Amino acid sequence: MITTVTLNPAIDTRYFIEDFKEGRLFRAEKTIKSPGGKGLNVTKVLRQMGADVVATGIIGGKNGEWIQENLKKMDIKEEFYVSSAETRVCIAVLAKHSETEILESGEELTDSDLRAFEKKLMELVEKSDVITMSGSLPKGMEAGYYQKLVELVNRKGKKVILDTSGKSLLEGVKGKPYLIKPNFDELEYVLGESIDGRDKIKKAVEKLKNLGAQNVLVSLGGEGAIYFGEEILKITISKIKIHNTVGSGDSSVAGFAKGLDDGLELNEILKLSMACGMSNAQSMETGRVIPEDVKEFMENITVEVLKI
Amino acid sequence: MITTVTLNPAIDTRYFIEDFKEGRLFRAEKTIKSPGGKGLNVTKVLRQMGADVVATGIIGGKNGEWIQENLKKMDIKEEFYVSSAETRVCIAVLAKHSETEILESGEELTDSDLRAFEKKLMELVEKSDVITMSGSLPKGMEAGYYQKLVELVNRKGKKVILDTSGKSLLEGVKGKPYLIKPNFDELEYVLGESIDGRDKIKKAVEKLKNLGAQNVLVSLGGEGAIYFGEEILKITISKIKIHNTVGSGDSSVAGFAKGLDDGLELNEILKLSMACGMSNAQSMETGRVIPEDVKEFMENITVEVLKI
Repeated sequence: MITTVTLNPAIDTRYFIEDFKEGRLFRAEKTIKSPGGKGLNVTKVLRQMGADVVATGIIGGKNGEWIQENLKKMDIKEEFYVSSAETRVCIAVLAKHSETEILESGEELTDSDLRAFEKKLMELVEKSDVITMSGSLPKGMEAGYYQKLVELVNRKGKKVILDTSGKSLLEGVKGKPYLIKPNFDELEYVLGESIDGRDKIKKAVEKLKNLGAQNVLVSLGGEGAIYFGEEILKITISKIKIHNTVGSGDSSVAGFAKGLDDGLELNEILKLSMACGMSNAQSMETGRVIPEDVKEFMENITVEVLKI
Repeated sequence: MITTVTLNPAIDTRYFIEDFKEGRLFRAEKTIKSPGGKGLNVTKVLRQMGADVVATGIIGGKNGEWIQENLKKMDIKEEFYVSSAETRVCIAVLAKHSETEILESGEELTDSDLRAFEKKLMELVEKSDVITMSGSLPKGMEAGYYQKLVELVNRKGKKVILDTSGKSLLEGVKGKPYLIKPNFDELEYVLGESIDGRDKIKKAVEKLKNLGAQNVLVSLGGEGAIYFGEEILKITISKIKIHNTVGSGDSSVAGFAKGLDDGLELNEILKLSMACGMSNAQSMETGRVIPEDVKEFMENITVEVLKI
């Protein structure tokens, strides 16, 4: 079983307003709302790939109830801890030539919320082999909170995939997650300088490994990825038509988690991870993969040892 | 008792984002959410003025539950009909130099929703003396729906104050409401020409009276108002410092309803109505009045017969 952790979920609201600009009144003729947060994207993809997955995290208020009801409609099992802090809303206004985003910061959680959530998480960890932790931390939470969670899970001998950014990542790796999956922006943050070649990638990855990351999967977008484990592996993918890369990182986390949970060989895990990201990029919808396409993509992905 | 009707309520969400413009990502550090819709503003003011008031209308989904819970926190009695159509959200982004609004259109109601709501309304009408109906009609509803509701209430011998605009007003007056309270924009819509003097006001009001309106209260903003009943009355108010006129129209509807319900003389009803609008204009909050201020304002309002 896989447990996905979403500490800072949201109701993702998309308004379609062709000529949107500030200072005027608009009626949104089309509105789409969906349970959001990177961890829930991972969950959706795992569900589509037929994995045995349970979503957990912290939600609250009427927005939290809305998310729970909608996960149920998607046939997704959830064991969220319900706090009294209202779950936030994140808005995207999609116009013809622009996209405007408003992210609510959400309400602060109490210490007793965290203790109660951790108890719930550890019950799920007992039954799980792989635990993914994705996204930002809620407002007011210490940057080191992921470190604590990773350590709790490691103590049970289970594998954690940690996908976060900025200070939460730098602190979180100290808990020694099995895998992190930074992109270039995240590596630049880690290094404090621009990533302009393989040497810089290696330098940033070494820093993350020294801090505690066991394995590091660096996405190169359309160029595939590099995996820094016991060996360094270069994963090459075929060229595909891209529609929407939002959620592709979450999809590749889902693929990696599914491969681990299924006990696949490392090469197959990496192929599955890439293929899930590719399938998501071919859909207009975030966190949407087609298992048949994933299977087909896998056949054209190569993994080779890299000497750098 | 007073019953207020809000057919198209909303969760009013205000984001404070100093440098808001389209095409970028913003984190809203401050967010205020409140039960919204003109009828709920009327209700809030009536509650503050100590009236015996019950709010009704149609709500649904988690947003509807949120509104119900928040009315309860404000100690406001409500008897909304709960449909399966999710209540909408209306957003205002308040920047330093601009205000941007996004209004969701909401979901359509079914005929059986309307029948069930009408049943609920008529139970409340039995116990009420005054019924206010405020705001726009939900998406997909026939413009003549207010006419039907006003007729249902008139048949019970109770008084209706109808405060709506555009086609809903033009159709609604045919039901013969006791009072309508159009502003200049609404009179211009009725007449199809600009209102540039008392003759034009009179012409528009006569059209509304011919259609069915029993009495018409025309707001002149800082200049007071003109009441077209059996006689024409000019209401003159004192100059005050204005902070926020949003909700002042709803507040004057509340004042009128309270005066009617208390059985006051017409002159006193008009003074109370104006004074509630004035008190609201002195607050930064929409639908907020201070009863002591209302009392003081009333002492400086004059009502005189006008010959035009």
